[in-house]
Amino acid sequence: MVIVGELINSTRRDVAGAIARRDGAFLKDLARRQAEAGADIIDVNVAVADGDEVENLKWLVNLLQGAVDIPLCLDSPNPAALKAGLSLCGQRAMINSITAESHRWDEILPLIQQYKPRVLALCMDDGGVPETVEDRLRIAAKLVDGLVGAGVSGDDVFIDPLVKPICINTGYGMTALKATRAVKVAFPGVKTICGLSNISYGLPGRRLLNRAFMVMCVAAGMDAFILDPLDRPTMSLLDASLALAGRDEYCMNYIAAARAGKIEF
Amino acid sequence: MVIVGELINSTRRDVAGAIARRDGAFLKDLARRQAEAGADIIDVNVAVADGDEVENLKWLVNLLQGAVDIPLCLDSPNPAALKAGLSLCGQRAMINSITAESHRWDEILPLIQQYKPRVLALCMDDGGVPETVEDRLRIAAKLVDGLVGAGVSGDDVFIDPLVKPICINTGYGMTALKATRAVKVAFPGVKTICGLSNISYGLPGRRLLNRAFMVMCVAAGMDAFILDPLDRPTMSLLDASLALAGRDEYCMNYIAAARAGKIEF
Repeated sequence: MVIVGELINSTRRDVAGAIARRDGAFLKDLARRQAEAGADIIDVNVAVADGDEVENLKWLVNLLQGAVDIPLCLDSPNPAALKAGLSLCGQRAMINSITAESHRWDEILPLIQQYKPRVLALCMDDGGVPETVEDRLRIAAKLVDGLVGAGVSGDDVFIDPLVKPICINTGYGMTALKATRAVKVAFPGVKTICGLSNISYGLPGRRLLNRAFMVMCVAAGMDAFILDPLDRPTMSLLDASLALAGRDEYCMNYIAAARAGKIEF
Repeated sequence: MVIVGELINSTRRDVAGAIARRDGAFLKDLARRQAEAGADIIDVNVAVADGDEVENLKWLVNLLQGAVDIPLCLDSPNPAALKAGLSLCGQRAMINSITAESHRWDEILPLIQQYKPRVLALCMDDGGVPETVEDRLRIAAKLVDGLVGAGVSGDDVFIDPLVKPICINTGYGMTALKATRAVKVAFPGVKTICGLSNISYGLPGRRLLNRAFMVMCVAAGMDAFILDPLDRPTMSLLDASLALAGRDEYCMNYIAAARAGKIEF
């Protein structure tokens, strides 16, 4: 299981403020605490902070590389920001994200070929976000074939089936789960990833829904999540789910977490 | 989703004590509170209480029928106790359980034919509890064919895939989930059911594991659980899981539960 820590995101007011006033101590602490809590990769999004995105991202990448020794996930709609970030990353980064939309593909693929990051690839194309499992699988095939054909190792490809809110269509949860299983079957060499908050958009008790959906995703074979690793109930449920899904040999990780007092619920 | 409230079970010390001293108020209250919390059926097990099981069960069935207007699930290894209980049930009962073991089948089938209860049918035969999904499906076929052949409506058959502890084999969780899906595909007219505590036997943090496994079971299509309906986090997770699995039209039940302040986590 690969955990991408989501907290350094400029849509969070405290993070945007810290970026704007160059509060390095706050941001380094947020990165370190996520790493200590189990994050394997730290997502870095400065897209909606005040100031120039490229300058903000360069500052933040340099800052965080000195603070944690795990990779960064550069998360931006702006190819110039991604390029600037990639050029500074000592450790091989991840980028969030490429899609099968023509313009996005053409802008991002050269960066992938130059810097060889891990790649989060969203199942959407010029037709937008697909409705069905079959459409997701068709777009996933386009992404996997295109990336692997361009020299990317399948192991570095993280396919995001794109989770849509169940308040719009109650079938969207099962669609994402089935798409995850279908991608794992069709492309056993690539990974699957998703965020957890879209599923519950527009509904009350969102944390509960997000956590329950994570459990279902683990049983469906999801390889990675973008989540808040400081949320102990979420991390406890994740450890429990991996044990239940046969993805924790002898339940050793779960038992160790329980012995260390890390299981909270 | 059918919820069988599990609390009136003589393996619980307070329940065994209440049965032995004929504390009807305590037991009626326990039945009523489970019904109010969402139980559709009340499990009644007196097997390990002091005194004669048949007499205890007759007393308890008469007592509870006056207290709640939902069916009872008569839960006993003893065919004489089941027969005595069935003969007293005004509402059509459930029995827990029949198996494909020859002696059990021969003892229980006549009671089913006479009293026409709902039937909890365990996927085990003379070879014991099976190891694989395929063996579970083979035994489920024997149970479904035998019961339906004997005149039982498929809708009254609840197949229990038999969940074994993941501390013995980490694959047992996925085996139960796959067996559940396989039974639903092979016999769309029958229901699936399971208890939640076996999965976590021998491990720390059992409630967490039980709850996470319930979530996975909902996504796999499980139709019924034997559980503690007074456990609010479990019931909240169940409501959330049904919404996520597309089993709650417009998420109406989940939203209503949240509005009523019943979502707790």
